[in-house]
Amino acid sequence: MTDPSGFAAITSQLERLAIEVPSWAYGNSGTRFKVFGSAGTPRSVEEKIADAAVVNRLTGLAPSVALHIPWDLVDDYTALRSYAEDLGVALGTINSNTFQDDDYKLGALTHTDKVVRQKAIDHHFECIDVMHATGSRDLKVWLAEGSNYPGQADLRGRQDRLAESLATIYERIGEDQRLVLEYKFFEPAFYHTDVPDWGTSYAQVVALGERAMVCLDTGHHAPGTNIEFIVMQLLRLGRLGSFDFNSRFYADDDLIVGAADPFQLFRIMAEVIRGGGLDADSDVAFMLDQCHNIEDKIPGQIRSVLNVQEMTARALLIDRDALLVAQQDGDVLGAHEIYIDAFSTDVRPALAAWREERGLPASPMRAYAESGYQQEIEESRRGGTQLSWN
Amino acid sequence: MTDPSGFAAITSQLERLAIEVPSWAYGNSGTRFKVFGSAGTPRSVEEKIADAAVVNRLTGLAPSVALHIPWDLVDDYTALRSYAEDLGVALGTINSNTFQDDDYKLGALTHTDKVVRQKAIDHHFECIDVMHATGSRDLKVWLAEGSNYPGQADLRGRQDRLAESLATIYERIGEDQRLVLEYKFFEPAFYHTDVPDWGTSYAQVVALGERAMVCLDTGHHAPGTNIEFIVMQLLRLGRLGSFDFNSRFYADDDLIVGAADPFQLFRIMAEVIRGGGLDADSDVAFMLDQCHNIEDKIPGQIRSVLNVQEMTARALLIDRDALLVAQQDGDVLGAHEIYIDAFSTDVRPALAAWREERGLPASPMRAYAESGYQQEIEESRRGGTQLSWN
Amino acid sequence: MTDPSGFAAITSQLERLAIEVPSWAYGNSGTRFKVFGSAGTPRSVEEKIADAAVVNRLTGLAPSVALHIPWDLVDDYTALRSYAEDLGVALGTINSNTFQDDDYKLGALTHTDKVVRQKAIDHHFECIDVMHATGSRDLKVWLAEGSNYPGQADLRGRQDRLAESLATIYERIGEDQRLVLEYKFFEPAFYHTDVPDWGTSYAQVVALGERAMVCLDTGHHAPGTNIEFIVMQLLRLGRLGSFDFNSRFYADDDLIVGAADPFQLFRIMAEVIRGGGLDADSDVAFMLDQCHNIEDKIPGQIRSVLNVQEMTARALLIDRDALLVAQQDGDVLGAHEIYIDAFSTDVRPALAAWREERGLPASPMRAYAESGYQQEIEESRRGGTQLSWN
Amino acid sequence: MTDPSGFAAITSQLERLAIEVPSWAYGNSGTRFKVFGSAGTPRSVEEKIADAAVVNRLTGLAPSVALHIPWDLVDDYTALRSYAEDLGVALGTINSNTFQDDDYKLGALTHTDKVVRQKAIDHHFECIDVMHATGSRDLKVWLAEGSNYPGQADLRGRQDRLAESLATIYERIGEDQRLVLEYKFFEPAFYHTDVPDWGTSYAQVVALGERAMVCLDTGHHAPGTNIEFIVMQLLRLGRLGSFDFNSRFYADDDLIVGAADPFQLFRIMAEVIRGGGLDADSDVAFMLDQCHNIEDKIPGQIRSVLNVQEMTARALLIDRDALLVAQQDGDVLGAHEIYIDAFSTDVRPALAAWREERGLPASPMRAYAESGYQQEIEESRRGGTQLSWN
Repeated sequence: MTDPSGFAAITSQLERLAIEVPSWAYGNSGTRFKVFGSAGTPRSVEEKIADAAVVNRLTGLAPSVALHIPWDLVDDYTALRSYAEDLGVALGTINSNTFQDDDYKLGALTHTDKVVRQKAIDHHFECIDVMHATGSRDLKVWLAEGSNYPGQADLRGRQDRLAESLATIYERIGEDQRLVLEYKFFEPAFYHTDVPDWGTSYAQVVALGERAMVCLDTGHHAPGTNIEFIVMQLLRLGRLGSFDFNSRFYADDDLIVGAADPFQLFRIMAEVIRGGGLDADSDVAFMLDQCHNIEDKIPGQIRSVLNVQEMTARALLIDRDALLVAQQDGDVLGAHEIYIDAFSTDVRPALAAWREERGLPASPMRAYAESGYQQEIEESRRGGTQLSWN
Repeated sequence: MTDPSGFAAITSQLERLAIEVPSWAYGNSGTRFKVFGSAGTPRSVEEKIADAAVVNRLTGLAPSVALHIPWDLVDDYTALRSYAEDLGVALGTINSNTFQDDDYKLGALTHTDKVVRQKAIDHHFECIDVMHATGSRDLKVWLAEGSNYPGQADLRGRQDRLAESLATIYERIGEDQRLVLEYKFFEPAFYHTDVPDWGTSYAQVVALGERAMVCLDTGHHAPGTNIEFIVMQLLRLGRLGSFDFNSRFYADDDLIVGAADPFQLFRIMAEVIRGGGLDADSDVAFMLDQCHNIEDKIPGQIRSVLNVQEMTARALLIDRDALLVAQQDGDVLGAHEIYIDAFSTDVRPALAAWREERGLPASPMRAYAESGYQQEIEESRRGGTQLSWN
Repeated sequence: MTDPSGFAAITSQLERLAIEVPSWAYGNSGTRFKVFGSAGTPRSVEEKIADAAVVNRLTGLAPSVALHIPWDLVDDYTALRSYAEDLGVALGTINSNTFQDDDYKLGALTHTDKVVRQKAIDHHFECIDVMHATGSRDLKVWLAEGSNYPGQADLRGRQDRLAESLATIYERIGEDQRLVLEYKFFEPAFYHTDVPDWGTSYAQVVALGERAMVCLDTGHHAPGTNIEFIVMQLLRLGRLGSFDFNSRFYADDDLIVGAADPFQLFRIMAEVIRGGGLDADSDVAFMLDQCHNIEDKIPGQIRSVLNVQEMTARALLIDRDALLVAQQDGDVLGAHEIYIDAFSTDVRPALAAWREERGLPASPMRAYAESGYQQEIEESRRGGTQLSWN
Repeated sequence: MTDPSGFAAITSQLERLAIEVPSWAYGNSGTRFKVFGSAGTPRSVEEKIADAAVVNRLTGLAPSVALHIPWDLVDDYTALRSYAEDLGVALGTINSNTFQDDDYKLGALTHTDKVVRQKAIDHHFECIDVMHATGSRDLKVWLAEGSNYPGQADLRGRQDRLAESLATIYERIGEDQRLVLEYKFFEPAFYHTDVPDWGTSYAQVVALGERAMVCLDTGHHAPGTNIEFIVMQLLRLGRLGSFDFNSRFYADDDLIVGAADPFQLFRIMAEVIRGGGLDADSDVAFMLDQCHNIEDKIPGQIRSVLNVQEMTARALLIDRDALLVAQQDGDVLGAHEIYIDAFSTDVRPALAAWREERGLPASPMRAYAESGYQQEIEESRRGGTQLSWN
């Protein structure tokens, strides 16, 4: 096979790409209007991990699974870890949840009531305990906190309490562990959110210490936000901890990453590469955080990791030397064309060939369809309660 | 009491203001992350109507209750109507629901499968049957239909099927009934929505006939949309059927109307008045459609109808003659100031006095707090299943 | 050359693609902060047409040039027509301008003053006279009218006057001519715009008659608007007159079409094709409307028409039969993948080969760079006043 | 006069409110489509200051005037300072301008060419020289820098060069001077902006030192951004240097502050007060930055400072003790109502009376109209060149 696009030169970097999949993507999800079920949906954490392992087996891209506590509460995490490892995947980031208990209706780490704050802090301590058992590096904190009505809450007091609560949690994490603070523009709070933007997350984590980082969820920004700029900035400031990948047309739609705007995903990956986020010594974690409300979940996840891989490959193909020259020269159209040339390249054939070289199916999507796995789980997973976000 | 603002001159119009409340506002609601319950929440349609009747008793503003089928399915609507009338309220608009049955996962009136379409049409026929029993004038159709991924659906085919389905439903409504078609920018579908904007709703209802109208939900627009312009246009075109009032900072937040941007509500009511929507012969229906996710529901509804009343009063105070002169003269700041003067007027004392004249409490909010009703329902409504959106 | 993607099958349709270029794209443009000049910028209408002819010569895609009155006012349009034809291009759409005369500060076709309205109407009559001389089919009306402050203007009165003014203009156009009404979300007016959305443009042109159509400028929508849906709807309603192509990240940025979101351009062209807009009997006009504020103008235009061509080619490659089956079957991911497959195809080599077959340069961008034209105009066009938007 | 709203208690704080007006607001401004002139527009810096002095004389609110270099370049700033002081106003913030010289087409402080960067740095040195002559405290830096096309520029390289350039400038400012860095979402760059959000401005100024602060322009955010949250955060972090007040419906519309969303202005001022920004020892500077494109400039400025004053007064009326209790108690509606009560209060009569006590006209707008100043300048300022943004 000829290699007009220079694919051979990028495989060593491409090999480093690993995308953590979220356990909850294999359960049911939906909107406030309806959560539709689907045949074959897992009834246990183990079944979710089994499904995730299929994604990894077919793509070679998804070696770890993120857990969500308490959605993925089990009695014995050491056993769960072995179970996962036997299936070829590791347990990854631990996600806390302080938004589904009645006590958290008006806040958790920011609550005016010290008792509620302590309860939320204790929950994070439990998550850290889980991390020790699972060998997880990252504690990811997404806070659903905020208010719905102007005047309802004291924004400043909440920010100060947030700082205090986070500091208490941060003290507890291990030397090799990190606290990663996610930000989100809005939802479920509709007037103010306590960590609404990267600036707030950055200011909070800088105050904590060196092992506190920012999580960038690609769906958590105001309309029109230039996300790759934030990627650049957080890498520059040394605080890009992880990505939650998904895509959106409107709000936090949680669609398959790359489905809404593939060029945006390309630009994000281009900036990751430019800033060293895919270097051998990079600590940036790449994760999915999506909702497969209407599409099949396992192929939805396969499609997602393939999209990230495909756009990473295209971004790696950017002729960086030529680009830099054009940028230096102020050649607006020339620089843009070098950039777009990489994006316009169809890397699918090269990726398929490369997959086969590595013992993976050329088309993971087709391989899944032909594997019979879906039919098997639809058959075997009858009865029980399908897992969802609770 | 002196009347510097000219309040006396507007009471005859203000008296015409009636706001329909939605039965579902009295049940629990939430986001996809969590539906919080609250003490005293109704367990039956009757309890919802009882709560709505309290809102009307204290404000004199909410003489009817909208129902949602099947959420408000009962065996005997004639009995329900009597029950409501005994409490001083009428049954109002009937809202159909074609988004919570598994068959509707990929569409209802637009579905590619004729069987599913017919099922959705039949549901509307049932709603029309209910309307005959309840004496309702309006069948309100909000369609949750759309798609999440580009390519998933044939936009054009769906639009054509929508036209056909609506025509079949329209044929069935009575001579004195109306079909009101709501539009919504997005959610629960995240790529395309089949009735996303007023233009689509308008084009569809014009094709149906004279008793087909548009419903404008104040939370269903793209960011930055000038809603009062649409109010003006629909009144001009003779197709403004009804309002679903609520407010928002981001998406379809469904907050208390007027809470996010009181000046916007003022502008909307000013345009309603300008276009004859509050005239004696107007058929425009004013309704609430909100979610009280974290605040108490009954006072949330009281606050809502009061907000509409307050902004309507301010809008009625606009010195229309002076405004027209300034507008004709191109006096930009002068016209703006006349408009703003009305908005800046504190009508609360005059409204309180006017309420008392009519045998209503000066402060409905305080009256509710002091009525003991909330304590009573929290006490009496123990056990059973609190109603929510299903 | 093998043809794995089925390119051969689409060339007959691709051949029909013709994109009108705007004369003003060859002059200087900028923002309110600064208009930067550039060497070689035309000083006369003729020089603009000469530049446009180069774009057509190198791409075979731009056979006509839109004019803007009064920016392109000349004494003798018959002579201008001959001049253009000698260069291989036709004169196309005539664009009116009622936003740069001091009288139009507060409106033109909607102005409260009848004298100003008549002046604006008369300007359109002059444009129609020009059309007769140039042989142009379309009179394109973009109205910069609106208001900046709530209360400043009577929205309804303006809408009624707009209808009246347009009717007067419409009466004057010839049997084979069309009036095309553009809409725009905002700018230069910042509170309300008199034709802000497709619904308003549609309602206005329907009232005029069958030769009145809507112009869709791809940069004139609220954030998040699904533009291809509007394309579908206007084609369905028989009122899609023309496109003004450009792209944007924020507002009406007027960037090179396809530069900001190539997938969106693909979706738009897919819907054009689906709705018959590229059929042999289609009357849809494809135009550019862009600002080359910082990049070179002629290659900017070449890049633009190539982008439209490239995305049209990809959209033509959609396997429509397979797509329809997947859509009918409710195969969400399957349908999406068929759609995305076409988008992911690199059509550049096939397009280059096809161009050469037709006697065009394989790479129009490179051909322009090597042609020496830029150097020539930079040399020869010294002195005089570079043309801009006035 | 009775004082039901507690106005007397807030006047000591209200007295501290001072709003700097921008010299350029008195010149002509417009959009990229047209800059309309108006009778009486200044032809010199002195005439701009004279107009600004009128605003201060009538309102007592605008004791200083911000200058823009080079728009306000004069030979002798000591003389200008005396001229201004004789008219009762001081010279305030100095604004640099690195966006209108041809060299800055592709950047200034971030430019790839060291020569251009040095030129831009030197311009800031000149501004600092002016500051020494005028006695100005603040050097305000708004950078129009960015790129229009993905790939055009190296985002990271530009950010690093920005840091370096700013550090060089920061070193030069005096002990009692501050560097204030403004951020802006977009425009005039349409793909990326080098300082697009408060997070970037914050990260840059923290790296500079303690006298580097953030400037918050109320029109420079993405749609839906909660601006008062940023106000809270910057005050909490000790980095809120100044405000550029204006209002908007869409983008950076630069409308009269408070005209588009008075409740938002109220919320911003409430957060300023909450965070100590109006305390006696506060260094926060309040400025206008607006465009009076179609309205008269001087009354436009009077209206603006009055709007800020009015909303500040309303915000000062918030019953903070009661609010805090309701917030602590989680009384959602109760807290919201306390907040809204203050907003709903009509403070205009109390403000008018207070003005008269202080020897100011009760209605500055009417006083201006009756002063004959407008007629006088329209008469006297004939000939010459009206000033604009260049």
